[in-house]
Amino acid sequence: RRCHHRPTAMLNVPFLPFCAFLGTLGLLCVAMVGTWCQHWRGGFSLDGSSRTFNWHPVLMVTGLVVLYGAAALVYRIPNTWSSPKLPWKVLHGSLALGAFVLTVLGLAAVFRFHNAQGTPNMYSLHSWMGLATVLLFSCQWAAGFGAFLLPWAPVWLRALYKPIHVFFGSTILLLSVASCASGINEKLFFSLKNGTMQYKLLPAEAVFANTLGLLILIFGVLVVAALARPSWKRPDSDSPDSRQVRDALGG
Amino acid sequence: RRCHHRPTAMLNVPFLPFCAFLGTLGLLCVAMVGTWCQHWRGGFSLDGSSRTFNWHPVLMVTGLVVLYGAAALVYRIPNTWSSPKLPWKVLHGSLALGAFVLTVLGLAAVFRFHNAQGTPNMYSLHSWMGLATVLLFSCQWAAGFGAFLLPWAPVWLRALYKPIHVFFGSTILLLSVASCASGINEKLFFSLKNGTMQYKLLPAEAVFANTLGLLILIFGVLVVAALARPSWKRPDSDSPDSRQVRDALGG
Repeated sequence: RRCHHRPTAMLNVPFLPFCAFLGTLGLLCVAMVGTWCQHWRGGFSLDGSSRTFNWHPVLMVTGLVVLYGAAALVYRIPNTWSSPKLPWKVLHGSLALGAFVLTVLGLAAVFRFHNAQGTPNMYSLHSWMGLATVLLFSCQWAAGFGAFLLPWAPVWLRALYKPIHVFFGSTILLLSVASCASGINEKLFFSLKNGTMQYKLLPAEAVFANTLGLLILIFGVLVVAALARPSWKRPDSDSPDSRQVRDALGG
Repeated sequence: RRCHHRPTAMLNVPFLPFCAFLGTLGLLCVAMVGTWCQHWRGGFSLDGSSRTFNWHPVLMVTGLVVLYGAAALVYRIPNTWSSPKLPWKVLHGSLALGAFVLTVLGLAAVFRFHNAQGTPNMYSLHSWMGLATVLLFSCQWAAGFGAFLLPWAPVWLRALYKPIHVFFGSTILLLSVASCASGINEKLFFSLKNGTMQYKLLPAEAVFANTLGLLILIFGVLVVAALARPSWKRPDSDSPDSRQVRDALGG
């Protein structure tokens, strides 16, 4: 009897070309959010003005979307399945830590901007979603480090926590891209409020940033779909499948 | 050799209690969006005023989130697996059609409001995301009807299209809840703009609607997680697993 894995996510695409496509899409998102802030929103500084705020979208898209997505996909690279898992765990944790650092800097940028302008923090749904995402991410990183990288973590704890870690891994990315969409929407309403460039007149900036929002959503959905695809998962070393897969790989 | 399904979504929760929880959460979202519009936004009418707009969030949350989620979960009810699939297909298609009708009425409400006020349509990222979601949903319904309910659809077409339908089923729900979050955020900025009730002062309405936004996101993520969970999927009648499962069910 053959083990039956339903194709839940996509058609029969090989992982690496799909991953190259995702990488291109992610870099495009980073380039576009940088271009938006540089070309239309006045560029970057650390003086507490809206040019300080501009670090917020750039750091969030780069950290909590693109680098986070890269970290999540590390175990899906089939070429790594026949080698020991520890180096890939370290890479996964390091990329996630890099994503987390950029995220915290991104939060610092918006808090610094609000405080310099006398604007309250944490009132909008965007801020609630975003902070919930970051808090979940910090728990995810700490619990992942404690359970999977500390060598004395018991096997039963790893087995218990792993499906939870996998579930929150995808959930955090989805919350992150939903936060990006509401943030871009909100920023355009703030920035294109009066005069000839109103958001509702759909100037070039609005078309550009709306398109960026859609691309970020597509990136998030495709990463989560790639994560969910059964045939792209690294076989568990302690599962009954793993010997079969090692045989199939000739390892 | 045992067939190895990795627990990708959640711990070992039985489907029906989880489903009852999801149903309660969905009804809570519907009750809260209705309460928001009735208690804080002036209630409902068809006169083109903001009371016409109020149908938009209520119909979208009811149709494109909660009823859509119910339609998506029909095949996951284990009690139905031993009986023929056709009645459940009809139920799935009917619930989805009901969700689609509410969605179109929800679109009509916001277009009627904009046109009556002389506001342009379709400029914000929220509107782009939302319309993309509705367009994908209409394609999804029509293609699902053509491929799975018309009796003369060839088996190869069903097999080819099914993973695509499953993928877009989850994707549309995620885009839908992301659209809800950006829409609630946007509406609060519009409605709580001036005076003592500014959004940034976080009045009771803002806390209530922000909480609604978070609950909608949690609902969407939990439905998608339930859909992705391998052990909750209806076994394919044409798969090598199905005889085993029928045996296990005593069918």
